[in-house]
Amino acid sequence: MKRKLLTCLFFAAACVLTIPVGAQTVAFADQRAGWLEKARENMPELIRTEVKPQWIVCSEKDPEAFQGWKMIRTEPIDSLYNSSFKNRKEVIVDFGDHLTGYFTFRIDHTGLPADAPLRFRLTFAEVPAELNTPFDPYPGGLSRAWLQDEVVTVMHLPETVTIERRLACRYVKIELLAQSYYDFRISDIKFEAVSSASGEGRPLEPTVDPMIARINEIGLKTLKECMQTVYEDGPKRDQRLWIGDLYLESMANTYSFENHALTRRCLYLLAALADEDGWLHATVYELPKPEPQINQHTMDYSLLYGVTLLEYLKATGDRQTAEELWPVVVRQVEFARTYLKDDVYDMEKQPQWWLVFDWKDDLNRHAPIQGLMTFAIDKSYELATMLGREDEVKEWPDVVKAMRKASRKNFYDKATGVIVSGPDRQVSYLSQVWMILSETLTAKEGERALTAVLDDPTTCYPGSPYAYHYVIEAMIQCGMNDRAKELLKSYWGGMIEKGADTFWEVYDPNDDFKSPYGFFPVNSYCHAWSCTPVYFINKYKDIFQK
Amino acid sequence: MKRKLLTCLFFAAACVLTIPVGAQTVAFADQRAGWLEKARENMPELIRTEVKPQWIVCSEKDPEAFQGWKMIRTEPIDSLYNSSFKNRKEVIVDFGDHLTGYFTFRIDHTGLPADAPLRFRLTFAEVPAELNTPFDPYPGGLSRAWLQDEVVTVMHLPETVTIERRLACRYVKIELLAQSYYDFRISDIKFEAVSSASGEGRPLEPTVDPMIARINEIGLKTLKECMQTVYEDGPKRDQRLWIGDLYLESMANTYSFENHALTRRCLYLLAALADEDGWLHATVYELPKPEPQINQHTMDYSLLYGVTLLEYLKATGDRQTAEELWPVVVRQVEFARTYLKDDVYDMEKQPQWWLVFDWKDDLNRHAPIQGLMTFAIDKSYELATMLGREDEVKEWPDVVKAMRKASRKNFYDKATGVIVSGPDRQVSYLSQVWMILSETLTAKEGERALTAVLDDPTTCYPGSPYAYHYVIEAMIQCGMNDRAKELLKSYWGGMIEKGADTFWEVYDPNDDFKSPYGFFPVNSYCHAWSCTPVYFINKYKDIFQK
Repeated sequence: MKRKLLTCLFFAAACVLTIPVGAQTVAFADQRAGWLEKARENMPELIRTEVKPQWIVCSEKDPEAFQGWKMIRTEPIDSLYNSSFKNRKEVIVDFGDHLTGYFTFRIDHTGLPADAPLRFRLTFAEVPAELNTPFDPYPGGLSRAWLQDEVVTVMHLPETVTIERRLACRYVKIELLAQSYYDFRISDIKFEAVSSASGEGRPLEPTVDPMIARINEIGLKTLKECMQTVYEDGPKRDQRLWIGDLYLESMANTYSFENHALTRRCLYLLAALADEDGWLHATVYELPKPEPQINQHTMDYSLLYGVTLLEYLKATGDRQTAEELWPVVVRQVEFARTYLKDDVYDMEKQPQWWLVFDWKDDLNRHAPIQGLMTFAIDKSYELATMLGREDEVKEWPDVVKAMRKASRKNFYDKATGVIVSGPDRQVSYLSQVWMILSETLTAKEGERALTAVLDDPTTCYPGSPYAYHYVIEAMIQCGMNDRAKELLKSYWGGMIEKGADTFWEVYDPNDDFKSPYGFFPVNSYCHAWSCTPVYFINKYKDIFQK
Repeated sequence: MKRKLLTCLFFAAACVLTIPVGAQTVAFADQRAGWLEKARENMPELIRTEVKPQWIVCSEKDPEAFQGWKMIRTEPIDSLYNSSFKNRKEVIVDFGDHLTGYFTFRIDHTGLPADAPLRFRLTFAEVPAELNTPFDPYPGGLSRAWLQDEVVTVMHLPETVTIERRLACRYVKIELLAQSYYDFRISDIKFEAVSSASGEGRPLEPTVDPMIARINEIGLKTLKECMQTVYEDGPKRDQRLWIGDLYLESMANTYSFENHALTRRCLYLLAALADEDGWLHATVYELPKPEPQINQHTMDYSLLYGVTLLEYLKATGDRQTAEELWPVVVRQVEFARTYLKDDVYDMEKQPQWWLVFDWKDDLNRHAPIQGLMTFAIDKSYELATMLGREDEVKEWPDVVKAMRKASRKNFYDKATGVIVSGPDRQVSYLSQVWMILSETLTAKEGERALTAVLDDPTTCYPGSPYAYHYVIEAMIQCGMNDRAKELLKSYWGGMIEKGADTFWEVYDPNDDFKSPYGFFPVNSYCHAWSCTPVYFINKYKDIFQK
């Protein structure tokens, strides 16, 4: 989720935030150090698990397989350990599942000591095609260094080689690039897998559809891999906390691993790294030190922070955290309100912030942001009521009402029963979804609108699992339970049918090679925002486990 | 110096040493642990020096330059440090001199923190052409991993990158292979240079020829770079102790840095890692633990061990070490004597051991080994007399006499006044040289023989600085002082005129690209056996400093 960085940067360079810097803002700046300390106190201990590969595999071209490649088991791992690697020269080992952590292997001379250094290329792959697509010349739009190929020189044998960078993969290809005169073998390949999640999640009903059970399992695995010292978006690429991913992951966590300290840490970390005037950054780094991605603001993510805090409070009852971070929620809403013109989000106002919503360039975001903002203010007011702070934001309910009214006037086509967005009156899934979630449309209107877009192949459909989350949530809100279940099974189940070990950042059932980055191997194939079936399946048991 | 490894290995696998295993042999095996301990006790502390590059350079094609490339200074190093590396993408920095040690540089973001990892290729070069010759596909005969190119991924900024392997170079090329959206710069490039040598060597006479002074300087530098925790053959490639290199380096050390503990360490280390029956290995490794290169025996090197010990005793008066290691000398001579048939070295006897002598496949080694063996037994007897151990080896003087006699009969062509070797009666420099050094020929005969080969372009001439050492030594022994000085100036001075910062492993004035390994970039351009001008210039002051 990076394509828009440069655009944002240009805007940011040209603009200065216009919200008033008053007493509350100063209080913000003062509180950030304390919040950072809280984030530190909630740093989870990573659970480390040693995992060993069981099989040697080989890549086989198969037009039916995901991205055209599948892996075939050829030999048990011992046959690698018991034979010359000087002769073999190349191997792919299969850890049997997606892992995040640190890779180690041992090299021993088998006869005479090595008389010269060895050189290897190691390539770590989440999916088979990553090992079968040349990385260079690199055509992608993100740093090529996200690709997980490392070249190592081994000066002396025996040697235990550990790759310093944390990796995310299921398969590892080891290629011999330079050899000694004397023979040697590879052994003791292992992964120190890391995660801050433990446990197996909640037990499912015995009657559950096997595909739902499998989706739940893969969702749990996806979430677990992304739960590190923050909720990461992807353990292979980006490896960082985004507000949008946090929202979905923390809800899935509530219905599975229940590591609420991690959610607490992330909420404090984002708050600690906000601008001086309290405007949250969409994403923050942990290493080498906690730091925001400067000027990376997104209006939709900022507004979802308050919803995340609300859900956290509901799940934990941790009133202290919610109290402390409440001012952050107020700042996001108040800043967003400066964008309202006649109760409608002003798409012309500068600076324009990135509106994420989906991996879809062609999605018109006007109706979606109008709906999401209404939803977020409404939820943030619910938080205020839980904290007894309604007085501080007593105008919010009126804002919500006015926005709903304006939305119906400006975006709702009563004749066709769908929400339209932008000068071209675009009809998209997400426009309906956000007007449903914000209760701008009634359940009945929502069902009509969603049914219309579902049945019309010309509507702008979602491009990412992130967007599909909100579609399912909206369906449930409209009582479209069967269609919600059907969609969950077909979309996430579709990835499983294509061999997914974890859910992918990008999934278009019609295009295995889709990439927002111009090169599918740099896609993340274990991505946080795709884990939400865990939330749906475990929260709405009556719908998904029946 | 590795080409013959496989050949030796095959011989060794097929044969067992035939020397009797008696009381003395058992004593050997027992003493090795103690000798290893002595080697450890004499481990030198490495002197660490921080060196920073001053200039950015660029490669320029020049048919007149060594191997076709020269470096041109373009900018002071600060201009690298003060500018964007994202824009520059590639740079070559010049440390101004050959260095052996550890490379470090720093990378900082200059504006926003990096949003993605970076990837660099670093290439370390002793000579300019190493940076201008593609390494892949690698055509060489030794491990490609000796080539000093490393690929590094930098996950977070700021970062200080240190390359783990020890490197030997003057120039470093840094290439950007993958970048973040945001800008960054490189700074603080440095080398932690290591050597166990200190000081500047001995002062030269003020009247010294400037080219001799320069040769001495480059020789000192070469020796210093090779003096690590052993006398290494080359700090870039092999990085290990060979007996032949030890012999020349230790003599040069005696006339310069006088780090006699290092010589002592090497003598003990070789003894400790001998076969059970006392037969020395030609080369030993230090890492990951002291270990010989099994089955790597060379008859000429083994015999030179005793000469090395003799020269060490003369230089230091350290009788205790000489006493302790005396049995090792006896074993080498006694084993070599099993190869005598009618007082002539038997080239048919199995196992045949590698005879190094020179990088010349076409050199017939029969006369050279006959001469060297005579020389070595004679010198080893001199050691016996210094230690009062003549009684133990009282037959050696007769062996020497008999060998000289047999040599004159079998190898000396009185008519032409040259030594001939092998069935084709080859006339080579080295045949004359070893018959001179062994005093098989008188000085006068030697002068005649050497003059004959020097003046005949069809003779088999030396292929390496190692062989040229013995040529110069033989010239001096025959009183050919002017020609010795002339040869030293033309051969080693020739490297300097071609831009050498240190003396090379391989130097053929007529072929810049000569390589015993099929690929000139894998040659070592700082090689121990090329440092011996230091010995000549400082020992024979009347010849070289007048």
